Amino acid sequence: TTSFDPTDHPHRRYNPLSDDWVLVSPHRAKRPWQGQTEASDDVELPSFDAGCYLCPGNERISGDHNPEYQDTFVFGNDFGALMPDGPEFEGDDDPLMRVRAERGEARVICFSPDHAKTLPELPLPAIRRVVDTWVEQLEDLGRHYRWVQLFENKGAVMGCSQPHPHGQVWANTSLPSLPAREDRSQQDYLDRSGSPMLLDYARREAEDGRRTVVENEHWIAVVPFWAAWPFETLLLPKAHRPHLNALNDAEKDALADALKRLTTRYDNLFNTAFPYSMGWHGAPCDDSDAGHWQLHAHFYPPLLRSATVRKFMVGYEMLAEPQRDLTPEQAAERLQSLSDIHYKEAR
Amino acid sequence: TTSFDPTDHPHRRYNPLSDDWVLVSPHRAKRPWQGQTEASDDVELPSFDAGCYLCPGNERISGDHNPEYQDTFVFGNDFGALMPDGPEFEGDDDPLMRVRAERGEARVICFSPDHAKTLPELPLPAIRRVVDTWVEQLEDLGRHYRWVQLFENKGAVMGCSQPHPHGQVWANTSLPSLPAREDRSQQDYLDRSGSPMLLDYARREAEDGRRTVVENEHWIAVVPFWAAWPFETLLLPKAHRPHLNALNDAEKDALADALKRLTTRYDNLFNTAFPYSMGWHGAPCDDSDAGHWQLHAHFYPPLLRSATVRKFMVGYEMLAEPQRDLTPEQAAERLQSLSDIHYKEAR
Ligand SMILES: O=P(O)(O)O[C@H]1O[C@H](CO)[C@@H](O)[C@H](O)[C@H]1O
Ligand SMILES: O=P(O)(O)O[C@H]1O[C@H](CO)[C@@H](O)[C@H](O)[C@H]1O
Repeated sequence: TTSFDPTDHPHRRYNPLSDDWVLVSPHRAKRPWQGQTEASDDVELPSFDAGCYLCPGNERISGDHNPEYQDTFVFGNDFGALMPDGPEFEGDDDPLMRVRAERGEARVICFSPDHAKTLPELPLPAIRRVVDTWVEQLEDLGRHYRWVQLFENKGAVMGCSQPHPHGQVWANTSLPSLPAREDRSQQDYLDRSGSPMLLDYARREAEDGRRTVVENEHWIAVVPFWAAWPFETLLLPKAHRPHLNALNDAEKDALADALKRLTTRYDNLFNTAFPYSMGWHGAPCDDSDAGHWQLHAHFYPPLLRSATVRKFMVGYEMLAEPQRDLTPEQAAERLQSLSDIHYKEAR
Repeated sequence: TTSFDPTDHPHRRYNPLSDDWVLVSPHRAKRPWQGQTEASDDVELPSFDAGCYLCPGNERISGDHNPEYQDTFVFGNDFGALMPDGPEFEGDDDPLMRVRAERGEARVICFSPDHAKTLPELPLPAIRRVVDTWVEQLEDLGRHYRWVQLFENKGAVMGCSQPHPHGQVWANTSLPSLPAREDRSQQDYLDRSGSPMLLDYARREAEDGRRTVVENEHWIAVVPFWAAWPFETLLLPKAHRPHLNALNDAEKDALADALKRLTTRYDNLFNTAFPYSMGWHGAPCDDSDAGHWQLHAHFYPPLLRSATVRKFMVGYEMLAEPQRDLTPEQAAERLQSLSDIHYKEAR
């Protein structure tokens, strides 16, 4: 009888943050590709586009004009999914049809006035400015809302057909479902083991090195042991920091460096502007004890084999659980082998 | 002060099956569409395609030839995500890196020899044959595996670029994450209230009618109160049936009718072969008590505004919780207003 080989035998891995499992089918990477391919949108863009509602000086749908901004620029989403006013409402205790009103705010964060430069192409001081803007938004919205979700949807395949570099922030009064699950898991772990889950995890990954993609003095980015998306990564501070506003100056500089190197490697993987959704999770903005929370960013990129072949999380994934082909270790190895110099700069 | 209006004010609704919430932003349906559009693939197909590996008589990648099948045809997926053999393995109790080997099987189920006919275009007896094939697969695989996931990915936007009508079945030894959550929720509900959750729910929806899309003597399909996808539906038997193999003959006939009418309305919504992932959930195939389980099918269709404009479950949804624009009641109203005659037959 053969013994178990995680690079060859189907297995499940446990995600201790979301308290779910993922099915890993490494043998499946050998199958020929017969599936759907996406259009590649790797065209050279101008630094300013008169038709772009995010470029400096241009008019938005609301009729407002963007200022001639120099670094980042934040404005309220004209058709946000959340609104700051509206009546309170909490339905009765009907267990089958529970509903409650929700207040919040949605804003857009332009990362740069340059229409053509994505995050990895920005110079370090500009990325540091994005980090500072995230912290400012967290502090501002955290005064009124319990949860502040900072995120970026990048690329048409992630529903974002607007190439101007930008992210979003949605804040709301309730703790959303996924952060609520991470809150519980981290609390349970702290209760059982006496230390924060993701601090322990970052230390073990730093020692091991197999899943590490980028590391500097203050940060580590790994393909987590339980990654669901082919090249998913988890970006963690090495010290215990519950949220972005707990970072010191050196840690913010180091974060800019880690972000630049991680997203550069992503772009270099398939020589394309690598699409993803990314976002920050940290302790809720309320008075609750945050000892169990460790700040982290998730990167969920869908590409699988090339700039045009993606992973679909469909039937089995929507109904049973996420499934992946190549192992997290194999994905990390691919990302490790790439350069920290962006392919556009190198050519 | 205005009072809460669920057709106008952002709110959250609770999904009692998955124990998660969904954010509903009805005011957002008013925003102009600036997003990504998909290619529409509404071309007339031939009944037989010599290049299709699912058509009768053709060769598959494995070198096997399909038989000249007359109704449904099932074969083992040549590159399945699960495999029936392989060593047992259960890692140590490491809370951060838990892994266990997983055994299972993956098969493809051709719904019809006709390359060009999707589910709603098949005559009732042919759909009934699909139902019988699902039951046969459940019984066969359920003898060896605890979970048998029957599902269909339809349309290129759901990762399925193969138009020949077909579904899949993946069976495995463990209970996957989402069914495990539904198992717990249904058990809790039965413990608290003394009746099965989805039986109570089906009765209430049948009485209410606002969210009902299709109903016959034995089945009801509703846009559930907690729907996340724009036109998501839940298809339920009216009697207490833990799984597909508990259905009697009349219920199977009625299921064929409900499936035909539901998928016809989907196609009629945007005059297109409506893409979706659908699949069945029922009691696990083990000796455990199934009193809390009620059989149901989930339909998760991504289209939002037209044949080419879809909902993206990206940034906020991947990091916080699902968000929808139109309310489930508005979606049901749209589907209610459509004909039970397929648009291709009607023209
Ligand atoms: O039908 P295929 O090509 O086997 O695969 C498709 O459905 C599977 C099950 O939902 C997914 O895991 C794949 O990502 C998707 O491409
Ligand atoms: O950026 P947009 O157009 O507001 O919207 C995009 O991101 C949102 C947040 O992840 C999603 O809810 C939308 O489905 C997606 O299209």
